[in-house]
Amino acid sequence: MTTNFYAPPSSIRGRRVVLPAAEARHVRTVLRAEAGDEMAVVDGRGGWYRVEITHVAPEQVLGTIVEQREDVGEPVVDATVALGVLKKRSRFETFVEKAVELGVRRIVPLRTQRTERDSVRKERLRNLMVAAMKQCRRSRLPDLAAPQSPEALLAASEADVKLVCHAGEEATPIRRAMVEAGDASALVLVGPEGGFSAAEVEAAVAAGCTPVSLGPRRLRAETAGLAALHSVMIGSKDPPNEARSSRRPTEPG
Amino acid sequence: MTTNFYAPPSSIRGRRVVLPAAEARHVRTVLRAEAGDEMAVVDGRGGWYRVEITHVAPEQVLGTIVEQREDVGEPVVDATVALGVLKKRSRFETFVEKAVELGVRRIVPLRTQRTERDSVRKERLRNLMVAAMKQCRRSRLPDLAAPQSPEALLAASEADVKLVCHAGEEATPIRRAMVEAGDASALVLVGPEGGFSAAEVEAAVAAGCTPVSLGPRRLRAETAGLAALHSVMIGSKDPPNEARSSRRPTEPG
Repeated sequence: MTTNFYAPPSSIRGRRVVLPAAEARHVRTVLRAEAGDEMAVVDGRGGWYRVEITHVAPEQVLGTIVEQREDVGEPVVDATVALGVLKKRSRFETFVEKAVELGVRRIVPLRTQRTERDSVRKERLRNLMVAAMKQCRRSRLPDLAAPQSPEALLAASEADVKLVCHAGEEATPIRRAMVEAGDASALVLVGPEGGFSAAEVEAAVAAGCTPVSLGPRRLRAETAGLAALHSVMIGSKDPPNEARSSRRPTEPG
Repeated sequence: MTTNFYAPPSSIRGRRVVLPAAEARHVRTVLRAEAGDEMAVVDGRGGWYRVEITHVAPEQVLGTIVEQREDVGEPVVDATVALGVLKKRSRFETFVEKAVELGVRRIVPLRTQRTERDSVRKERLRNLMVAAMKQCRRSRLPDLAAPQSPEALLAASEADVKLVCHAGEEATPIRRAMVEAGDASALVLVGPEGGFSAAEVEAAVAAGCTPVSLGPRRLRAETAGLAALHSVMIGSKDPPNEARSSRRPTEPG
């Protein structure tokens, strides 16, 4: 099966799956599917289903679940990356697409002293995230939070490990900070172009963040977000298969 | 100093620096420089210079080296990433920009069974690489090889560690393969969209490559290239400051 398809939980009842219209078109384009064919469907909440197609119409594809698993393609570590809203939207989009592939659980666009934009194109980013989830074969659609300040985010966060990336000499290399923490949930803050101000770093540290460095090269903001995420994913020592994708019997519909 | 400027070795004679015209314009735009100001200049071969500007004209900036270092911003590990030429040029360009930031030493565009393009835009990629080198404050301009086959590349490679990324179950997680190798030079092969064929993986293994996995999610080719590179950089256990940036006295011109 070349790609997964997306059916939100509301389109799954018992063993019966009714794909949304856009997704049904995608199935028809990609698979040229006929009744009797199989496809992989994810519900964006950790549910993965092998589905036998029972009916194909121009705007509608129906199927029956024949196998069900949980959290296929999902990492153990629960990673949130908060990245300053970037001036160039395409760079934020590159970040979002690749963060989903690398296993992020939640993305938070940050408003900081040096951000020059207030907003993101939420619908467009969500579509990118759905496409990336399907393409990379995850079963969970990561959250996309509303743009907010680092203070608001840190006040509400219950992450076990909180990291703020900045270039200071006293910062710990990020992989060391994370390896110590094991499989914890992690929140990583990354500034926009130009980084966080010294006051913002201080406030983040006061709110429980460890200052971490991404090395001696000055990474672009979106590269920094991806490198930080990847370091956290590697440092967390996931088992090779990233576990939790246990089979469970399919309940009759 | 907000960015580095680029002066190829031919434009440096003794302590005297004559910036190329394009770079001189960049200095004038970014710095609004005047005689007496300082700037950081790299020669793309590991030379880093603090330069006092002595003369500014519309197409010309001259200066005198007041401090000289070597390999500033350069990692210890000598990493080559070979990536299949991608259908979408913009995705290969994203890879190139970020690979330079993450510390790659050499990029090799690969022609494989599943590549649908033969060529890259060499001049455009080189410009991107120069810009990324300056922006992220490296002192070496990575090599960009001509597109070639995995066989040709592997036959010529003297890397200590050779890795081929593929999704097979028997593959070692890439970080484990690299951590065992320590600070070696490394070559990582990453396929185009659709990956390597089974025959290509077999041939690479026969030529000395270890098959490695990038985890359970199916990464896009350019994301895979970046994740593989970052894993190698992290696994190589560089010291935090990535060393080698020793000062040496400036020789009189």
